[in-house]
Amino acid sequence: MREPAVSKRIQSLQGLVVPLFQFFGRTEARRAEMGGDFSDFVAGNPQEMASGPYVGALQRWSKPLSSDWFAYRESTPEAQAAAAASLRKRLGIPFEPSDICLTNAAIAALAVAIRTVADEGDEVVIVRPPHFLYEPLIMAAGARAVRVDVDPRTFDLDVDAIAGALTPLTRAVILNTPHNPTGKVFPPETLKRLASVLEDAAGGRSVYLLSDEAYNRIVFDGRPFTSPAAYYPNTMLIYSYGKQLLAPSERIGYIALAPTMPGREEIRMAIITAQLATGYAFPNGVLQHALADLEQISVDMDLMQRRRDLMVAALRETGYQLHVPEATFYLLVRSPIPDDLAFTDLLAEERVLVMPGSMLEAPGYFRISLTASDDMIERALPGFAAAMKRAVQG
Amino acid sequence: MREPAVSKRIQSLQGLVVPLFQFFGRTEARRAEMGGDFSDFVAGNPQEMASGPYVGALQRWSKPLSSDWFAYRESTPEAQAAAAASLRKRLGIPFEPSDICLTNAAIAALAVAIRTVADEGDEVVIVRPPHFLYEPLIMAAGARAVRVDVDPRTFDLDVDAIAGALTPLTRAVILNTPHNPTGKVFPPETLKRLASVLEDAAGGRSVYLLSDEAYNRIVFDGRPFTSPAAYYPNTMLIYSYGKQLLAPSERIGYIALAPTMPGREEIRMAIITAQLATGYAFPNGVLQHALADLEQISVDMDLMQRRRDLMVAALRETGYQLHVPEATFYLLVRSPIPDDLAFTDLLAEERVLVMPGSMLEAPGYFRISLTASDDMIERALPGFAAAMKRAVQG
Repeated sequence: MREPAVSKRIQSLQGLVVPLFQFFGRTEARRAEMGGDFSDFVAGNPQEMASGPYVGALQRWSKPLSSDWFAYRESTPEAQAAAAASLRKRLGIPFEPSDICLTNAAIAALAVAIRTVADEGDEVVIVRPPHFLYEPLIMAAGARAVRVDVDPRTFDLDVDAIAGALTPLTRAVILNTPHNPTGKVFPPETLKRLASVLEDAAGGRSVYLLSDEAYNRIVFDGRPFTSPAAYYPNTMLIYSYGKQLLAPSERIGYIALAPTMPGREEIRMAIITAQLATGYAFPNGVLQHALADLEQISVDMDLMQRRRDLMVAALRETGYQLHVPEATFYLLVRSPIPDDLAFTDLLAEERVLVMPGSMLEAPGYFRISLTASDDMIERALPGFAAAMKRAVQG
Repeated sequence: MREPAVSKRIQSLQGLVVPLFQFFGRTEARRAEMGGDFSDFVAGNPQEMASGPYVGALQRWSKPLSSDWFAYRESTPEAQAAAAASLRKRLGIPFEPSDICLTNAAIAALAVAIRTVADEGDEVVIVRPPHFLYEPLIMAAGARAVRVDVDPRTFDLDVDAIAGALTPLTRAVILNTPHNPTGKVFPPETLKRLASVLEDAAGGRSVYLLSDEAYNRIVFDGRPFTSPAAYYPNTMLIYSYGKQLLAPSERIGYIALAPTMPGREEIRMAIITAQLATGYAFPNGVLQHALADLEQISVDMDLMQRRRDLMVAALRETGYQLHVPEATFYLLVRSPIPDDLAFTDLLAEERVLVMPGSMLEAPGYFRISLTASDDMIERALPGFAAAMKRAVQG
């Protein structure tokens, strides 16, 4: 009897990701079955043709201006400068260009950041509901994910619970603000309390705050966004351009070190080392060349907000319960029956595809992405109503 | 006294990569000092403007043909089919499209493959001189690199030495064929002997052959190239388009499972899991859309061969000792004095930049990349002669 060929670590990770593969496989089969006639709210994916400015930027910066245009590159100074300028302007925090470590989007940035600070046996605190890859990324570094729930009533961080979860093995806390899937922007006063808890906890070893801010420009109602980097020096701000540009296939983002972080030079060098060891985790050259242009491009937030308002009103009118999201692409809606998988099956029968909360560690809910087209939304509203009716009638 | 903020693993990796950072830093400073007036043979980087067909392909495939053009993607079926067709045609091995796991180039492919098969404490055999990232990638997975030298006379694999290095902890052997920096193509008879050694060794656990074939199209003299996948079923063939296209900044490549590999379905799934856990290590969408076109584009091998022949003849005439490379971009030249760092400093004074062998675990040699322009080569020849003269005169 041969031992299994796959490493134990990857075997244990498969236990986490296989249910998602199965869900995505089933969903893909449903799409194929229905032809084009369905409304797709499953993921933060484009459902309409990409914008002219975005395509123009890719094409323009594909044309070389020098012989080293397509040479090996780590973080290029021009791209670092563009990202730092944007952060300074938007967040009012004096980020330095050399503290911007460009990566191939946020998942790679997290993989790099986690292994930069955590070793075998260390702990990383994550906030539930978490992104489905947080725990696999932590386990891949040999560390252990420790979960803390958001406040189920307000969706705000439960700072006391985070304080209670910290141990001498804690090397990092991962936040996602704005928070997918709740749409919550964690408020300044919560972030200040968290900073104070983390400062106190850091006895012998620093606890890093990995602040996943992929949605920090996808904020509604002109609401200000505050990064925890404003309050906690050991913050690595993690960004992906995939949401802003609605182009998650083209992987570019960064780790930005808070300008108040002690020992930044040492950490920068450690991050570059971790990027090499994570498979040369730097963004492609064309995207780096294009970055100053890409900074100027964004999904239409007025349109997103109109969709949010329309959907929230229509769903509430039909009897659904949900918060009004402050940010992100998502509505997190209470399933009318406790079994969200059964309910999302009912929705699928109505040609409405959504993400079951059970796939996101938010059982009893389902998630709607506002990246669906207006046409999809219009067609889906009767389906949402019909599924509600069927669920309530049991 | 606070403990260091950086993980122990990354600290130990820094010991490996810092000398290289320092070398590249010094080299960059030298380039800046010399203005444009130098010959750059350091890395396999473009020194001339990128080709029209390559730029055209990037621009053409940046234009979306569907609404999901820039949606999240893993390996796309069209790109898998293009890569498999090319392998079947060039190697005569019936690779299946679904066994092509597209990654963001070879370093990411290796990171993924290593963690798919190796756990904490396992061993991976590498052939010296190795790529400078092999050991960091192995250590990042918690495993240990075990070195075996090539035959110093012929640069062929030393199969007996590999056999002697295998232990019950060995989970993989990494080969690089064609071999950077020696330019050797490991011959079929050697690969057959290696296959037989690995078959015998595989008692309880499979030993995988990770065959890094980034240069498998950069072969001179119309010489045939044979992949070990032809002989050893547990082969993962690793490819990068970065050499063929001379565009290492745009990261695309793959892991191809030999069609004879047992349990391929299980391994495929494990690789996708490892790709997610390695930071979503899939190539960007534009490059995947473009892949069938990119397959048709290559550096001009006639030109490369003329440069090789010119350089080999000129260097030998000046008294340098070197093999004629069978493949790759590189000439591995004996340093006229034992201290290759001192000699490459002499060359730099003559405005000729090369890679010291000490940076590649090939002390006593230096490496020349044929990606330099004809103009750089012409200007460098007197410099090579002058440095030789100064070295010999002591």
